[in-house]
Amino acid sequence: MDIEAVRWADGRLRFLDQTLLPHEERYVETADHHVVAEAIRALRIRGAPAIGVAAAYAVVLAALQSSRGPATAFFPSIRRAIDLLASTRPTAVNLFTALDRMRSALDRSTALPASSVVEVLLEHADSIFRHDVESCRLIGELGAALIVPGSAVLTHCNAGALATAGAGTALSIITTAARQGKILRVFVDETRPLLQGARLTAWELARARIPVTLITDSTAATVLRKGMVTAVIVGADRITATGDVANKVGTYPLALMASVHDVPFYVAAPSTTLDRATETGAEIVIEERDPEEVTHLAGTRVAAQGVDVFSPAFDVTPNELVTAIVTELGVLRPPYTGSIRRLGPPQ
Amino acid sequence: MDIEAVRWADGRLRFLDQTLLPHEERYVETADHHVVAEAIRALRIRGAPAIGVAAAYAVVLAALQSSRGPATAFFPSIRRAIDLLASTRPTAVNLFTALDRMRSALDRSTALPASSVVEVLLEHADSIFRHDVESCRLIGELGAALIVPGSAVLTHCNAGALATAGAGTALSIITTAARQGKILRVFVDETRPLLQGARLTAWELARARIPVTLITDSTAATVLRKGMVTAVIVGADRITATGDVANKVGTYPLALMASVHDVPFYVAAPSTTLDRATETGAEIVIEERDPEEVTHLAGTRVAAQGVDVFSPAFDVTPNELVTAIVTELGVLRPPYTGSIRRLGPPQ
Repeated sequence: MDIEAVRWADGRLRFLDQTLLPHEERYVETADHHVVAEAIRALRIRGAPAIGVAAAYAVVLAALQSSRGPATAFFPSIRRAIDLLASTRPTAVNLFTALDRMRSALDRSTALPASSVVEVLLEHADSIFRHDVESCRLIGELGAALIVPGSAVLTHCNAGALATAGAGTALSIITTAARQGKILRVFVDETRPLLQGARLTAWELARARIPVTLITDSTAATVLRKGMVTAVIVGADRITATGDVANKVGTYPLALMASVHDVPFYVAAPSTTLDRATETGAEIVIEERDPEEVTHLAGTRVAAQGVDVFSPAFDVTPNELVTAIVTELGVLRPPYTGSIRRLGPPQ
Repeated sequence: MDIEAVRWADGRLRFLDQTLLPHEERYVETADHHVVAEAIRALRIRGAPAIGVAAAYAVVLAALQSSRGPATAFFPSIRRAIDLLASTRPTAVNLFTALDRMRSALDRSTALPASSVVEVLLEHADSIFRHDVESCRLIGELGAALIVPGSAVLTHCNAGALATAGAGTALSIITTAARQGKILRVFVDETRPLLQGARLTAWELARARIPVTLITDSTAATVLRKGMVTAVIVGADRITATGDVANKVGTYPLALMASVHDVPFYVAAPSTTLDRATETGAEIVIEERDPEEVTHLAGTRVAAQGVDVFSPAFDVTPNELVTAIVTELGVLRPPYTGSIRRLGPPQ
């Protein structure tokens, strides 16, 4: 069965609780947008594109629920839901892109009866979902063309089916190229602190019967230096107008090491991850995570008492370290200011 | 009380079981060299200098035990003990330096009665111990002179009192400079997979009341890029004749990032860590660790099933990324082939 990170199911949102992977594949169905907001905050639903899709459907859930309440509260409660969803995580731009689209649709629907508003919102959420599925497929096709036969690739965190509504971004390239017989092995950074590489990416690739070697994040430098990989492919949470890339912490050193060792460094993301309103990476708000994610392992404290923690969830890779950005609309090459502008306005 | 990683105590070796830190400070006393060999293998005793000291005393334990057995078995059993101890860990050169010295002393003592052989061996082990304590002190003094007032420094793994018989190597510099009022804060890489940074270094620094910020290994790049530290200081397990440095995996990418961000990268090690017989880092045997250290956390599997693991314990930092090597005999500067040769023969 294909992985379905987020999917609309008969008036409810169905999602895979990723915090339980790889031990348990538990799907949650909910009609409550608060449950979705909590799931995004707690990384049960994660990955920039999947968060965008889940938030769009959560707005539909809020509309459905409010349509059964007093008419005067209908629009205000949906707007409150949108604000709540926007407050869950600050860095991934897809969340805001999706919510902006839902808010605009709502603003244009104030003359409609509640049931029609729900329908309009559902159409938009479905469209965001379908667009993401199709983007993943196209990113896979376009990106696989960059992979030479006999490749071993390295990836970081999880940019797979779990991070999207479809087949993933970086992992869509990898699985597509693997189906074409071009990939011999995938090295996966475990990705501290939350181990998305070990728990999620390794699980997805093993399911797809692609040979996986798991490494600690620090071992990537050795793998690159020894020429054990021919390409690095990662996803993105936000890409600025100049092509700076915010992605899981550890992406920037990986890009730096790939550059030093002459290994191409590819970023895969749907065009909804492009944030044309932000010029450079320095302007991106980087989420800081709970210190306990670093001081504790599996609920048990491992770090010494009395220490501070600095735990940014993301880092910024400057555009000059990125060999190409693979979107569903085409493969972008440097200089990115021009290639991103030529894509035209967001779709 | 000062930390005593390894110490001779009345015919027994006393050591702190570092696998239980920071939760429990349990000292083990043993008269059995097999227990010491297991402790080195299992990282209960760790850190290149501490391993050397422990192995030297373990040879004394073997001699003591054999002196109570048949006379003909005396020398052969000590030699077997030396071979066993040499097989515990392949990368740290101090182990072999210490065992070579013990073996030579043994070879020169074959005409002596067993009790005198034990005495001779104990004198050598004590001398290795005292030399290490004094080296740590001198490394601290010489290295602290390189630290400018108002510094924040970054370190990786544990090169502290726990890794030596004395005050440590990299941490001796840090604690000495902190006593001189020059260090405001120390950033500590947690150091996957065994978390020596989170468990051991953070513990040592917190005990010394020095402000500590714990980070994941991947976050070091962000810390360096944002200018949050003014120097990186690490220990070493082996330094070649050309100044290539084998140290805990993750040291090489740290050196690369320090270089890119114009932050000095210092290596601290006693001269016993210099391996003049090895020309470059490419010749160093790198120990590979048990895959379970990566796939499991606190005894529970976290990684997906069916994945391979590549887990080298160390990596090699090429000499051109090292700003200076601080030894007890002086601060070495590039080109290291010359500065190491000028130190003269091993002491």
